[in-house]
Amino acid sequence: MKVIKPGVVIVGCGTVGGGTAQILWRDKSLLRERTGVDIELRKVVDLSFDHAKSLGIPEKLLSSNLDEALSDPEVGVVVELVGGMTFAKTVIEKSLRAGKCVVTANKALLAHHGNELLALARENGVAISFEASCAGGIPVIRALYDGLIANRIEALYGIVNGTCNYILTEMIQKGQSYEVALKAAQQLGFAEADPTLDVAGGDSSHKLTILASLAFGRKVDLASIPVSGIDTLSFDDVSYGSKLGYVVKLLAIAQRMKDGISLRVRPSFISKDHPLAWVSGPFNAVSIYGSAVGHTMYYGRGAGASPTGSAVVSDIVGVITGTAGIGFETLGIWPDRQSDAIQLPSEEIRSRYYVRCMVQDKPGVLARVSTIMADRGISIASVLQPEVQERDGKAVPIVITTHLAREGNIHDALREIDAQEFSREPSVWLSIVDEPNEFGGE
Amino acid sequence: MKVIKPGVVIVGCGTVGGGTAQILWRDKSLLRERTGVDIELRKVVDLSFDHAKSLGIPEKLLSSNLDEALSDPEVGVVVELVGGMTFAKTVIEKSLRAGKCVVTANKALLAHHGNELLALARENGVAISFEASCAGGIPVIRALYDGLIANRIEALYGIVNGTCNYILTEMIQKGQSYEVALKAAQQLGFAEADPTLDVAGGDSSHKLTILASLAFGRKVDLASIPVSGIDTLSFDDVSYGSKLGYVVKLLAIAQRMKDGISLRVRPSFISKDHPLAWVSGPFNAVSIYGSAVGHTMYYGRGAGASPTGSAVVSDIVGVITGTAGIGFETLGIWPDRQSDAIQLPSEEIRSRYYVRCMVQDKPGVLARVSTIMADRGISIASVLQPEVQERDGKAVPIVITTHLAREGNIHDALREIDAQEFSREPSVWLSIVDEPNEFGGE
Repeated sequence: MKVIKPGVVIVGCGTVGGGTAQILWRDKSLLRERTGVDIELRKVVDLSFDHAKSLGIPEKLLSSNLDEALSDPEVGVVVELVGGMTFAKTVIEKSLRAGKCVVTANKALLAHHGNELLALARENGVAISFEASCAGGIPVIRALYDGLIANRIEALYGIVNGTCNYILTEMIQKGQSYEVALKAAQQLGFAEADPTLDVAGGDSSHKLTILASLAFGRKVDLASIPVSGIDTLSFDDVSYGSKLGYVVKLLAIAQRMKDGISLRVRPSFISKDHPLAWVSGPFNAVSIYGSAVGHTMYYGRGAGASPTGSAVVSDIVGVITGTAGIGFETLGIWPDRQSDAIQLPSEEIRSRYYVRCMVQDKPGVLARVSTIMADRGISIASVLQPEVQERDGKAVPIVITTHLAREGNIHDALREIDAQEFSREPSVWLSIVDEPNEFGGE
Repeated sequence: MKVIKPGVVIVGCGTVGGGTAQILWRDKSLLRERTGVDIELRKVVDLSFDHAKSLGIPEKLLSSNLDEALSDPEVGVVVELVGGMTFAKTVIEKSLRAGKCVVTANKALLAHHGNELLALARENGVAISFEASCAGGIPVIRALYDGLIANRIEALYGIVNGTCNYILTEMIQKGQSYEVALKAAQQLGFAEADPTLDVAGGDSSHKLTILASLAFGRKVDLASIPVSGIDTLSFDDVSYGSKLGYVVKLLAIAQRMKDGISLRVRPSFISKDHPLAWVSGPFNAVSIYGSAVGHTMYYGRGAGASPTGSAVVSDIVGVITGTAGIGFETLGIWPDRQSDAIQLPSEEIRSRYYVRCMVQDKPGVLARVSTIMADRGISIASVLQPEVQERDGKAVPIVITTHLAREGNIHDALREIDAQEFSREPSVWLSIVDEPNEFGGE
């Protein structure tokens, strides 16, 4: 791989672009001392520069001319931080074709077009790095391609969306409803005005696509990942789960199974004793189970200008020193060179489940519910029928936890329960995620 | 840097040597697929081979002739896993002089002679890698030289000794004495027959020397690090601390201060809300605070054949692909090329403190204790005088927590308190470690 010039162009000077520019500019001498490389910020390309100017980036570095910036022979690295799927893709393609290495934090783009972009980089003899695309400042992509390279990855569980984790923490710790917690998150800047991409699980599924493809060394199909968000989560379920010893987290889950891999994004119950249960507020964490290393976890801030900038700059350093290029050329885990993952349909997932049925309060209902479940091979582990103050006529909850069951069977059973004359509201279910066998095996 | 041949010699086939050999041998095709490199285990050098044979390592790979193994031109990497300070040092020096890259897990040797060995590697144009020397399978050394390279490291707090953490967890969760917990750890293989190196803090100080030298990019002097272990910890203090909202952990602490760095190994109280408080049993974890990334934490198994082997093999892969060589040549944080750290004496540490005085139960004692502390500028934050069943004649505890104080002043105050006529036993003190300002500043 060729020598990469230490000149950098940042395209997009929003939150992360600004944070990155600030590290490169303000901490220039610190970076030189620590990295041994003289990284030079050559241009910050955007259409408006209010943010860049407020950060003290000198005017001579600001430009609206992408092509001119790319034609600079001293530029070895283009950092794409515009976000979105259209112009961002153009920026990356143009840069790769111009022989520049690319650093990006764009999880949506990578989840949809990552393999295509990786292949284009390879065609042009340059590298593409994306540590900042998952879990912000936490070096978890590096763990997958470097620190844990000696492991067959058995499972990965990620809290990879700080907005959701902040909202869930408020619900759990302060007993708030989803709506109130969301409003608090919006006021603090932890949630967007339109929070859909975060709270409905889409953002987590983008990150899961990237993490799973590296963990298993396979092409992962985003569209085939079942995704539920926290936007339909009821406080009652958070509260019943807590009584049963569980904490609810929005988990991005990747598991190696006998016949393929199982991927999903789901609000899930995990034991209060699992390290992921302790991750609160806007923090992210990823638990990775490797065949040799067992359980490791990586914790930190998953968003924000300077935490994400930290990851972007670590990629810039890797690209310029040449380690990124070697990894990109040599390692076998990059999905563009690999076959498609066998992604198991969600019906085939085997998990424990939490189920809440809302039923008429009359004799025989619990027996009927139990029979419907038993008929589908679902074995009940515990039943909690909370005391309800005024029973007359109102629906009462039956909360059930199951032993390991096939998810398709759970769906079938709940469909049948909801069709019964005693059923008052659609039943609710959540996965209960148990810690896997630490050193492999289902 | 030259191309490194993919042949590997492992010297020392004990627990970690065996684990490493097993990964290289049993998982050969997995490693080839994931790394893109055909790593070849050429020889396992030891004097006895019972363990190697029990792992299924073929006899033709077993040898007692180190010099012959080193003379093999196909060998690019020598893995030193004999441990100890004398023969291990010879193995590494011979290997480096023979132009082989070295991978080692030997924290004691690196803490004492790391700079000398790094310089010798540099002289011979080869790299030396040591991910497995700290925190076993957790890629925390990589976090310091790669993932967090864009950060000025402000502070590092490590639970880096699984034996101690196992014993402390038993004391906290089961209310056991140190002696009983130690015996349990020994029976389970978590503690050696002679546990001194672990429980007295020596092993943690070795790891702290390595971690701090990379975090701050300075030569660290092991002998100047104040070290206390858990072997003198009383269950009473664990219990009082718990009442005050703290968990006791043996912490390896490195903090950047205005005038230098402060390093120490200490059983310390941390808030029950800090992620390190949740690390239980034999697990390790390291919290690192970076100027850009804020708080990150790395969690996993700090010992054991295959977790440590995972780290050793990641180093072997880095050496053979060439990324280790580039990092070793380019980065500025390797301590052998840097100046000495300014290590502040322990008297100058500023921290909060927990103090337990054992005094005669009579009027005026608390007033006198408070006055002695106030005279040294120590401000009291809380006092806990637990009810004691039978008071007559017995010593009663006064438990005090302080605001930020200079450690030298604490020592002076306790010396004076212990000299009073009402003092019945030597006073006990422990640091209370608060989470630092996440984005820098004292």
